[in-house]
Amino acid sequence: MDTHQPLHIGLFGFGVVGEGLYKVLQQTPSLNAQIHKICIKNSSKLRNAPDNLFTTDKNELLYNEQINVIVEVIDDADAAFDIAQTALLNGKHVVSASKKMIAEHLPELLALQIKTGKSLLYESAACASIPVVRNLEEYYDNDLLHSIKAIVNGSTNFILTKMFEENLSFNDALILAKQMGFAESNPKLDVEGYDAVNKWSFLLTHAYGIVQHPNQLLFNGIQNIQLSDALVAKEKGFDIKLIAQAKKLSDGRVAAFVLPQFVTKDEPLSFVKNEYNGVVIESGFADKQFFYGKGAGSFPTASAVLSDISALRYQYKYEYKKLYHHVPHQLSEHFFVKVYLSFDDWKFINREQLEWIEEWHAQAERKYLVAVVNIQVLYQNSWWKENNTSLILYPDPIIENLDVINLKKRSLELAGIV
Amino acid sequence: MDTHQPLHIGLFGFGVVGEGLYKVLQQTPSLNAQIHKICIKNSSKLRNAPDNLFTTDKNELLYNEQINVIVEVIDDADAAFDIAQTALLNGKHVVSASKKMIAEHLPELLALQIKTGKSLLYESAACASIPVVRNLEEYYDNDLLHSIKAIVNGSTNFILTKMFEENLSFNDALILAKQMGFAESNPKLDVEGYDAVNKWSFLLTHAYGIVQHPNQLLFNGIQNIQLSDALVAKEKGFDIKLIAQAKKLSDGRVAAFVLPQFVTKDEPLSFVKNEYNGVVIESGFADKQFFYGKGAGSFPTASAVLSDISALRYQYKYEYKKLYHHVPHQLSEHFFVKVYLSFDDWKFINREQLEWIEEWHAQAERKYLVAVVNIQVLYQNSWWKENNTSLILYPDPIIENLDVINLKKRSLELAGIV
Repeated sequence: MDTHQPLHIGLFGFGVVGEGLYKVLQQTPSLNAQIHKICIKNSSKLRNAPDNLFTTDKNELLYNEQINVIVEVIDDADAAFDIAQTALLNGKHVVSASKKMIAEHLPELLALQIKTGKSLLYESAACASIPVVRNLEEYYDNDLLHSIKAIVNGSTNFILTKMFEENLSFNDALILAKQMGFAESNPKLDVEGYDAVNKWSFLLTHAYGIVQHPNQLLFNGIQNIQLSDALVAKEKGFDIKLIAQAKKLSDGRVAAFVLPQFVTKDEPLSFVKNEYNGVVIESGFADKQFFYGKGAGSFPTASAVLSDISALRYQYKYEYKKLYHHVPHQLSEHFFVKVYLSFDDWKFINREQLEWIEEWHAQAERKYLVAVVNIQVLYQNSWWKENNTSLILYPDPIIENLDVINLKKRSLELAGIV
Repeated sequence: MDTHQPLHIGLFGFGVVGEGLYKVLQQTPSLNAQIHKICIKNSSKLRNAPDNLFTTDKNELLYNEQINVIVEVIDDADAAFDIAQTALLNGKHVVSASKKMIAEHLPELLALQIKTGKSLLYESAACASIPVVRNLEEYYDNDLLHSIKAIVNGSTNFILTKMFEENLSFNDALILAKQMGFAESNPKLDVEGYDAVNKWSFLLTHAYGIVQHPNQLLFNGIQNIQLSDALVAKEKGFDIKLIAQAKKLSDGRVAAFVLPQFVTKDEPLSFVKNEYNGVVIESGFADKQFFYGKGAGSFPTASAVLSDISALRYQYKYEYKKLYHHVPHQLSEHFFVKVYLSFDDWKFINREQLEWIEEWHAQAERKYLVAVVNIQVLYQNSWWKENNTSLILYPDPIIENLDVINLKKRSLELAGIV
């Protein structure tokens, strides 16, 4: 029954993911995939695999003609790029779990795939156990994908859940996340949104053909979210989640960002708690789909790596249909968003940059307002994320066109108040 | 970039799914898939496609050497099997949306796939827009799949949702489902569980390598569920869903059935409302995954058919790994389940067949009890689904071994009560 070519694997990295993968491949002879060599940094550690599998010389894998697949599950994005590049140029397929590497080097990696004709698969790099890359590749035509909204970072979702459900402060929730292994000892990458926007950058490529360096995308993390914000959200019937979102606008451009957002209770993403990830895709064709699962951790990651290895057996490649077979979408900077802003002092808020203010509350310790703001203000300024100010988008935050009359009326109304 | 072979499609059926598919393929030249001929039953209807595409002679498709893919989206399972069989034997790949055909003819279809080496894909036949077949094929090794639980029938889920949320009676909810197009004019297939068990039979093949005719599986629908059952469920903090479930037991066998079940509010499946479907997969590797989406309707079905067509471009085939590359699992009839039974009169309940009764309530109109029962009782008898008696499983209903002491103690306790 199995007519596939055998896969001869060179594995980089033997941490929890690498070791898990090694074990499962051993238990799955049907995959016809075998690890020939494992490259590690530190040869002195005791490993649960035969000694002769290990080497510290990457060239023993990259220039080994018997090896036709390089699997890379290391932590160093720069080293990972070197490995992927050399492997592809040497005619090997590559499976990578490194979201940072994919995000920062996507243009080169796209060119390398075209030049070499080899596969580069990275399902594990976003949402691990959720097959989101494959789904975006296979299920949605360019014109049919209305929007995609996702929780792509488990650490921040865990922290927000604990703030909500147990009334923990941000710092206490962060400590708990560290204790439970859901946050790194230096949690900046997760907490300030870098990890989420890395994932989002290449998911945008598969969703809409947009190739944008993560630095160029609008994003923030949850570092300024206060327990008081959680209480306000609860009063309003919302959850707070760090949401990566992209939506096709009526002019054909795409609004995209990674920002904290209020989520109504009937939204699928409100169901995503603790360290889980979730993805909601709305399309003209499949309607609304929701995927939920563990987005990180050794086993979910190894599971996604395994699915990529399995796909290589039938010569699967990402086609980047939205990039190569369509006119790729452009990012839009021409829309408005409805936001909640909480802050310690009015002086930190640039009120002239708000289109209008719909609601405001002031207490001694913390103030908040609800306003509509031009997205360009968020792109071009950083006051909204400095000085402990917390910006949270409203549900369905995107407003494509302001109704001018409405705007004037509101301005008049509010002139006396604010 | 695209090195795939072009697909030349012969399409059977031009109802809402067929027409939707035709339109989308026209809008997606990048797929390199073209419909050459469409076989219909009634040539006199007006169609939104060029006349010369249509024929009423199936042999114009099945024996057309230019056509290398047959897509079948007709309603008649027997005709669908004839088409699939002839197409495979004539060296064509087949994409089918007919769950009844797949369920009833799986052994022959497996043999035909081996004999011809051609692909038979049917992602749209279960849960339409949810890629459940592909996921079970690609993501889970035999030994790692602990359990799978799913809502696979949208009509019954719609009816149960309306009974719960709007206190409608079963009959009123059914009328509403018909009005909204979520139930057939003869809803027996949906309501009595036949549609769900058809889907479940081949999902069990992909999940566990079990090939069992749907008639041989334990199942029931929701036809006897009363509004009073919904009220009891609410009091206990549960929803009621028609759940297709399979779980690996400690002896390596698999417990599987399709029965109404209480679902706790924190379970992903409680989130699945109205006509939506959902699938929860628990595995040692990917942990818990949840997929949610529309399980029927023209566009979701066409979307899944399209994903199969897309997969054929890289020669994708189901491997039935759990069947061919492992020792397939056996169905178990050696376990117990905790059940809720509501009924009009005690005489309809075979009390000797219950292991013990944990709780019972009697009112003039309707009585109910909570009991533990050997699964063989359900396999071998039908009193539990006759005479308006309603059986609903408890959450986590499976009990592998009864604690004998506990059993005796309970029997003594209850002797005076029941």
